[in-house]
Amino acid sequence: MASNSGRRLNIDNINPHVRAAKYAVRGELAVKSEEYRAALLNGPAAGLPFKEVISANIGNPQQLDQKPITFFRQVLSILENPALLEKADVLVNHLGYKPDVLERAKRLLAQVGSVGAYSASNGVPAIRQSIAEFLERRDGFPANQADIYLSAGASSGVNTLLHVICAGEKSGILVPIPQYPLYTASLSVLNAACVPYYLDESKNWGTDLGTIKEAYEKAKAEGVDVRAIVIINPGNPTGASLSEEDIRAVIDFARQQRLVVLADEVYQTNVFIGEFISFKRMLRQMQKEKPGVYDDVELASLHSVSKGMVGECGHRGGYFELVGFDPQVQAEIYKFVSIMLCAPVIGQCLVELMVNPPRPGEPSYELYQQEYDAIFNGLRERATALHKAFEQMEGVECGVPQGSMYLFPTIKLPPKAAEAAAAEGRTPDEFYCMRLLEATGVCVVPGSGFGQKEGTLHFRTTFLAPGTEWVGSIVKFHKEFMDKYR
Amino acid sequence: MASNSGRRLNIDNINPHVRAAKYAVRGELAVKSEEYRAALLNGPAAGLPFKEVISANIGNPQQLDQKPITFFRQVLSILENPALLEKADVLVNHLGYKPDVLERAKRLLAQVGSVGAYSASNGVPAIRQSIAEFLERRDGFPANQADIYLSAGASSGVNTLLHVICAGEKSGILVPIPQYPLYTASLSVLNAACVPYYLDESKNWGTDLGTIKEAYEKAKAEGVDVRAIVIINPGNPTGASLSEEDIRAVIDFARQQRLVVLADEVYQTNVFIGEFISFKRMLRQMQKEKPGVYDDVELASLHSVSKGMVGECGHRGGYFELVGFDPQVQAEIYKFVSIMLCAPVIGQCLVELMVNPPRPGEPSYELYQQEYDAIFNGLRERATALHKAFEQMEGVECGVPQGSMYLFPTIKLPPKAAEAAAAEGRTPDEFYCMRLLEATGVCVVPGSGFGQKEGTLHFRTTFLAPGTEWVGSIVKFHKEFMDKYR
Repeated sequence: MASNSGRRLNIDNINPHVRAAKYAVRGELAVKSEEYRAALLNGPAAGLPFKEVISANIGNPQQLDQKPITFFRQVLSILENPALLEKADVLVNHLGYKPDVLERAKRLLAQVGSVGAYSASNGVPAIRQSIAEFLERRDGFPANQADIYLSAGASSGVNTLLHVICAGEKSGILVPIPQYPLYTASLSVLNAACVPYYLDESKNWGTDLGTIKEAYEKAKAEGVDVRAIVIINPGNPTGASLSEEDIRAVIDFARQQRLVVLADEVYQTNVFIGEFISFKRMLRQMQKEKPGVYDDVELASLHSVSKGMVGECGHRGGYFELVGFDPQVQAEIYKFVSIMLCAPVIGQCLVELMVNPPRPGEPSYELYQQEYDAIFNGLRERATALHKAFEQMEGVECGVPQGSMYLFPTIKLPPKAAEAAAAEGRTPDEFYCMRLLEATGVCVVPGSGFGQKEGTLHFRTTFLAPGTEWVGSIVKFHKEFMDKYR
Repeated sequence: MASNSGRRLNIDNINPHVRAAKYAVRGELAVKSEEYRAALLNGPAAGLPFKEVISANIGNPQQLDQKPITFFRQVLSILENPALLEKADVLVNHLGYKPDVLERAKRLLAQVGSVGAYSASNGVPAIRQSIAEFLERRDGFPANQADIYLSAGASSGVNTLLHVICAGEKSGILVPIPQYPLYTASLSVLNAACVPYYLDESKNWGTDLGTIKEAYEKAKAEGVDVRAIVIINPGNPTGASLSEEDIRAVIDFARQQRLVVLADEVYQTNVFIGEFISFKRMLRQMQKEKPGVYDDVELASLHSVSKGMVGECGHRGGYFELVGFDPQVQAEIYKFVSIMLCAPVIGQCLVELMVNPPRPGEPSYELYQQEYDAIFNGLRERATALHKAFEQMEGVECGVPQGSMYLFPTIKLPPKAAEAAAAEGRTPDEFYCMRLLEATGVCVVPGSGFGQKEGTLHFRTTFLAPGTEWVGSIVKFHKEFMDKYR
């Protein structure tokens, strides 16, 4: 008879590092929310106290309300079916494709061949060149296409970099807390050491060099070979944009301690307050100011089509740029990415469109800019409305929305809630988020999924969902929750 | 001043397991061939003795001559730009899109939402359902969508499975030799043990159970905890389709030794001789024949849009089905894939189109079938022509083309060639392939990149490139090479 005992694999003998990895963004709450969504498809008689599930747990703009940018998708439709170019008049006269859409598609097809063919493992050369030109425009310093690697979203780039950098369980990486859990999960799988450093909530979640140094020294004293520092700027889950001063301090520290800087800059256009300053620009600036001093700093910066006003997560497009890396190490990075062959080619093309959108005077520019601005303003308005709601809620504190796609409020819960949570084997923030989901259909992620200072509680919510009804239901739930456990 | 010494990372301190990985399909020869290709773009004056580079090193059909299937690409063009559906009359009357193209695109959009949104980490539920129905039609046994995981090509699926199965350096996986080097490279990166077993060249590269047992026992005696056996069927690089008898023997052995079966079945439609029999079908058959005996066998079978008549490698679409896995282990697999969020959604849609193509009587059927057959016949003709050329070549032996996209001839080279190779620090087959590339622009992969028995030499070439000129140039090169080193 069938029995578990005959199976080769069980929870106790599979890779313990995979088992140890935690990824709360898609954890128990997310799974439960999908079950609710499926139940609701069977009609309102599902017996749930809400009519729809709001997935505020993950930055997935097009799952909610965000429309894709027309120019991007028109070009992609031609790349998928190049035969359309034989009917240019139909595209232009009947389907409203502007001439620059056709031109861009032709150019990309000439460079790519077919989007159904593997590209070079580091990406299509001409797309790398276009990214290099974008980086030059953005930063005012040269960029070299040979140092750019296309990836399947930024996540895959992070996976590559951590794989090459970490050489065993003694290798450590400084990771901000709170952080996007990709970093801790990947380090778990790699069985390398996560060296957490706390961001400063009192200073809008900025980096505090003293805290970073302390974390570094502590890890070093414990025998950890700290090799790199991760910076998420603008922050996830915090939304904070680092100041020039903070960036300089991090680069200087990285130089002193010989740390690779991993700059996760996927929210670079999601900035409401302050401005985005790239690590690359700052590093080049510092190299210019003090010739020779910063030449050995190694920087990898990552970007993606998933966020910003592009929001094309499902296409899994992204890239990273390496600065100052040893050519032999770069060759190993190339070999590593080649094992998975190449990043999705249509996603690579979307990266090209993102970094090289229509310019003023070009036929598609006006609509592009209009769509772009509408998305930007919509995100800001939703963030503001959500923030306003948080301000009314007892025991909830939340800084002014700064950027990215998230708010990360602190919540103070009554001791009775903590007791009820403990009785369920949950942390209080998990308990709170589970009750919120059950009562309202709104799925958020407990702060413990990103890390938070001992004794503090938070949750992360996106501000992507349209309308205000769901915001109202959070306010109502919160009041009832507080009353119940007061 | 800049100096290497200040850098944190160098070839000696990065992850030694990444460094140890070998991936010849995209190794030195491939890099050199791309340099030649770039040089030729600058005009024929590049001083090279050939006019074009023939990339016969990698199964990349659309880089060469293979056209995408029209139905697939028409649907994808609408998925990328759903606004096209508002102009259904233009699509049908001016662009030749058949009604079933529009219907399929509508249905997929209803299931997916936007191809720019993340899907569930294991893939869009409706696409998993469609795959399950395909598997039922193919095998005559039920399949459950909950056991299916969409992946970014089969490579990413293999990466996932090996990550979960291997629990340290003592974990071993039986891998056929010759093999597609994804397996050895991934095991290197994971620092797990590759347990090689040789395929039997004298029996059309079939599996030989005696050889497998020997490899298994030897590894076990050395303290390796052998956990799984990889079977590539039809074979890569060999093209062989396993007989029902061979498959039964492998499953029986897996049951006895409690090994997970990893069936890489990406070439399942590339079969010229014999027939493709899936491991799933055979396992279910055996379970039916002897109730209870095979219930605990764990099987993972992989498929992809990259090969077959689809040939859409650049889209990075694939899936794997799990049979008999422990639910807790499946939950860990889900968590692992969720760290990278999801497979490219447009690639997932292409998987759906592959497993559920137009059927007889549907408007797009005729063209689909015509294109499909033309690709199939074209591949067979090219394989036959190449095989004929090999038959004329001194010291070259090659079995009749059986399937996949490759031929894998044995070559016998004169001792002087081996000496010249040694003087260059190369194996004789590497030396031969490098000279071939330099003389003809034809890039193939030395047998050592896949593994071969001590004392034998081979190379792998795809038969995807059009025309016969390149085949002639191989024949001419070979004669000159043999004369030179005789």
